[in-house]
Amino acid sequence: MVSCEPIARLVEAFNKLPGIGPKSAQRLAYYLLRRPDEEAKALADALISLKEKISLCSVCFNITTIDCDPCHICQDKERDHSRICVVERPSDILPLERTGKYKGVYHVLHGVVKPAQGIGPEDLKTKELLSRLKNNSVTEVILATNPNLEGETTAMYLRRIILPLGIHITRLARGLPFGADLEYADDMTLGQALESRQEF
Amino acid sequence: MVSCEPIARLVEAFNKLPGIGPKSAQRLAYYLLRRPDEEAKALADALISLKEKISLCSVCFNITTIDCDPCHICQDKERDHSRICVVERPSDILPLERTGKYKGVYHVLHGVVKPAQGIGPEDLKTKELLSRLKNNSVTEVILATNPNLEGETTAMYLRRIILPLGIHITRLARGLPFGADLEYADDMTLGQALESRQEF
Repeated sequence: MVSCEPIARLVEAFNKLPGIGPKSAQRLAYYLLRRPDEEAKALADALISLKEKISLCSVCFNITTIDCDPCHICQDKERDHSRICVVERPSDILPLERTGKYKGVYHVLHGVVKPAQGIGPEDLKTKELLSRLKNNSVTEVILATNPNLEGETTAMYLRRIILPLGIHITRLARGLPFGADLEYADDMTLGQALESRQEF
Repeated sequence: MVSCEPIARLVEAFNKLPGIGPKSAQRLAYYLLRRPDEEAKALADALISLKEKISLCSVCFNITTIDCDPCHICQDKERDHSRICVVERPSDILPLERTGKYKGVYHVLHGVVKPAQGIGPEDLKTKELLSRLKNNSVTEVILATNPNLEGETTAMYLRRIILPLGIHITRLARGLPFGADLEYADDMTLGQALESRQEF
């Protein structure tokens, strides 16, 4: 019992966050201890207001503030509402927006199908996606789940249920990432880059 | 403006912590968003009570709770109070305690001499160290500042002011770290390991 209780508690709370091990957690706690009070206070306030002020958009289930529903993107008349990009998590929207290449709207599933953990399509926002597709003039659905086993399974399931609606279904291209080195590319990526080779 | 204000605020607060870049900060914020409310709350509470409940030990200047002064170590009658180990920061005590090889007490300087930044010995707890040494039957001072330029400068300064008191002064041994590889050891370390070679 060298470290005292308030520090131990903070170390424990930091340690619960992903990617923060016991050593980093301790470093962060001691860092805040020698910083002005306001710094720890600002983080504490941000944590509290996070949960108080945030809700999900009733249209696309992206994160929004409680006083702004539907969210900014769904309310934006400049955007192309006939295109819906389906993502796993709210955090997937940011990188897509940063590309500046997408002007459609989104739909957040809040997870992926994980049969081993008993998470089926009914646990995701799939019903809500279907009713959006049925009630609106949507012409294209872009499946932007992650390029891994669970993301693929989810995309394949969505494809099966959307196909009967006669809507154009696309997914993000597979291939070599920018700046990649053939020598170090993994077999899956290189295989897909070869299969999906494009006219040049 | 994709990310909404409460998230942006939390990302900014996390991003201010050492070793947490903008991407990690965002990952942490979104992680907390999908966890139960209690988790963000627990971290917020720990942050608030950190500053409210903590003070410095009036003897060794280690961190302690406001209702426990002197700290646990200074109060411990089992420990050898004739030996004082001088460290830069409160966080340096934990690793020393973990070795289980030290049964003396500590003195925390709260910094090092940094002439370039105008931090001199008078900005550290050196006066307090001297008065502890003068008023008590201390037989050994172990200088455990970090083995870098600033730590060395500070240790050398302390040595000069403690020497007249006739107290035995030691410092942590320099040499190759456990598990090191001669081939990759840096010149400074290897040079010191050679200079301070020990009987075997």
